[in-house]
Amino acid sequence: MIVQKYGGSSVATPEKIKKIAEKIKKTVESGEKVCVVVSAMGKTTDELIALAKRVSDSPKPRELDMLLSTGEQVTAALLSIALNDIGVPAVSFNAFQLEMITTSDFNNARIIDINAERLLDEFQTNDVIVVTGFQGITNLKDITTLGRGGSDTSAVAIAAKLNTKCEIYSDVAGVFACDPKIIPSAKKHEYITYDELMELASMGAKVVHSRAVEIAKKFNVALYCASTFSEERGTYVVNALPEWLEQPVVMGVTMDKNQRKFTISPMPGGQRAQVHLFEALASNNINLDMISIVKDNGYTYLTFTVVEGASERVREVVEEVLSQYGEHRLIEDDEVAKVTAVGVGMESSPGVAARFFAALDKEGISLLGTSTSEIKISTLVPKYDAERAVRAVAKEFNLA
Amino acid sequence: MIVQKYGGSSVATPEKIKKIAEKIKKTVESGEKVCVVVSAMGKTTDELIALAKRVSDSPKPRELDMLLSTGEQVTAALLSIALNDIGVPAVSFNAFQLEMITTSDFNNARIIDINAERLLDEFQTNDVIVVTGFQGITNLKDITTLGRGGSDTSAVAIAAKLNTKCEIYSDVAGVFACDPKIIPSAKKHEYITYDELMELASMGAKVVHSRAVEIAKKFNVALYCASTFSEERGTYVVNALPEWLEQPVVMGVTMDKNQRKFTISPMPGGQRAQVHLFEALASNNINLDMISIVKDNGYTYLTFTVVEGASERVREVVEEVLSQYGEHRLIEDDEVAKVTAVGVGMESSPGVAARFFAALDKEGISLLGTSTSEIKISTLVPKYDAERAVRAVAKEFNLA
Repeated sequence: MIVQKYGGSSVATPEKIKKIAEKIKKTVESGEKVCVVVSAMGKTTDELIALAKRVSDSPKPRELDMLLSTGEQVTAALLSIALNDIGVPAVSFNAFQLEMITTSDFNNARIIDINAERLLDEFQTNDVIVVTGFQGITNLKDITTLGRGGSDTSAVAIAAKLNTKCEIYSDVAGVFACDPKIIPSAKKHEYITYDELMELASMGAKVVHSRAVEIAKKFNVALYCASTFSEERGTYVVNALPEWLEQPVVMGVTMDKNQRKFTISPMPGGQRAQVHLFEALASNNINLDMISIVKDNGYTYLTFTVVEGASERVREVVEEVLSQYGEHRLIEDDEVAKVTAVGVGMESSPGVAARFFAALDKEGISLLGTSTSEIKISTLVPKYDAERAVRAVAKEFNLA
Repeated sequence: MIVQKYGGSSVATPEKIKKIAEKIKKTVESGEKVCVVVSAMGKTTDELIALAKRVSDSPKPRELDMLLSTGEQVTAALLSIALNDIGVPAVSFNAFQLEMITTSDFNNARIIDINAERLLDEFQTNDVIVVTGFQGITNLKDITTLGRGGSDTSAVAIAAKLNTKCEIYSDVAGVFACDPKIIPSAKKHEYITYDELMELASMGAKVVHSRAVEIAKKFNVALYCASTFSEERGTYVVNALPEWLEQPVVMGVTMDKNQRKFTISPMPGGQRAQVHLFEALASNNINLDMISIVKDNGYTYLTFTVVEGASERVREVVEEVLSQYGEHRLIEDDEVAKVTAVGVGMESSPGVAARFFAALDKEGISLLGTSTSEIKISTLVPKYDAERAVRAVAKEFNLA
């Protein structure tokens, strides 16, 4: 028994759904029972959100989930119709039928439990069960959705519950060391670790959502990411790379242009004001990244980045908190990008940071800030230099 | 507490949904709790069927219902979003949440029970509950749909369960004595009986489905049919007209062009073949109408009508059955229309049939067949004369 997940672009048209049915039929003929998790067709979710916005600027979250959950149900029903049409006994399940129980955090719910018995029962009479991704129900029978990456999360959670492997199909042929749009000859990995993929996914690599990788790691679910409509070999995501495989120091480099840099110059109020500000930003759900604090001549200078969309709230919170402490100046810069190199090999390989910075410096690229963890190193560069920076790092670490 | 039902054309756009929310708000402000039953937006159901046909010529019925049920869920969620947006506490319910239990006859299920407690509970905290019409779930948690007129049926069934009245809103301003498209000055009834409306509805009047009227009659649910977007007075549907109201002999006249006439000339095999043929047609779910049998000189001639769509099956069944009995000739005629006058007053008023036929004859319209019941009289006329026939009958019985 295996779990397969197909994303929105893979099920965007009835014709693609028929092709997926044929693909699944082959897997069934090889002797597997398949639990298929599907997303909404193409841009359906965005279209439903736009529809809701036409009746309300701030749709009630419970009702929005009621609306959005229809998208996956349409796909699940159509795929099941297509499978039965070509002689594959299949049944579609929504969150009620699957008993995919979640918290009641509408628009961003967490999975609590899944009724695996119901699934196993249905496999007595069906070869395929098509499940709506992205959604669940609360104990009070309200419909919830799981937020970004929700269908990946559904698929991995079901695989964890069934104690089986999970295949994620999309229009990307696997996990690349860098974006093939920037470097056409980018290396595709045959294996990558959960930890590395989590860093790469959260940096913008579109293969599988980091939240799903987190669950896969926790329950040790074997993941396989590949292209829906080609036979090309994809990428296995594992706990540790196979021993026979030469372990590269850096597995991937990504960039993220969706960054805004804030500088408070100078910070009033000393350390107490800093703690107060960080707490206030956190309680407003704003994630800070690339934080740097410099003290000079009795003054404190603070720099951090946030994702673009959070800028307005940052300004409000900074104003609200710091006005209690004294004068300050807030400087914004959205002409920055974050470039990140990831690799579990870094831990045991000193000098990676030095090579990383030297490669950028050699190209004359300005380094505007930096942060590191055990398996990654990030730096801010001017936005117009982002692609060049990726190429420089890729060349230094043989990623193409 | 009242039940209101809004049809597909009333909820066809987000703008119309907002207008309906405003209308419901007024009802709430008058002190009522409202259970609103909605159809899918505009032509959504037809579009979903077309989508299914693109993956399979004969979609599996269970999966088709899974697909179709999303249409009403979209409307219910949007209307609930619109209501909350203007300050009316509302919640949307699908068939799972409502526990609308049906038989497992997919595409054409019958309602078995509704969990009224859940509804009443929710009215503790909400002024409006928006319910998806047209759908239910089986005891095994499969989604079903109720077939033609399903949303009307849902609304009346809920009103019966809650022991309250039911308002049916559509783009028709009430029950007219004849089609205003044929006779612009057609009388609109203030009151009409269940029995009369059932006859009129099954004859093609588009106000409320006859199946819903049947349930309303059975549970004595007060029905009110009116226009969604005007304040114009609609029509009350009751068990018997108020005593102070003058009881007209004929309440309405309708026509139905969706008829095909079959003549078997002559019928082989005598009465045994007839019975065999009727049984075979019935077991193929073909409803015969306007049956006439004429015996002449040892030969039997049989004529009947069916709705247009059933023609092919009729040909097959007739061929299959009668080929066992001997030679026969099957003549088809689709250039006919059925004109029907309805009125509970007929029963106690002899001579209505005579006036009906005389009115048509005076206009030189051919009468091609006839059938009567206690409260209606129908005749077949040439299709090109159908409108003239309606006008003649309307004039004779003062329906304009």
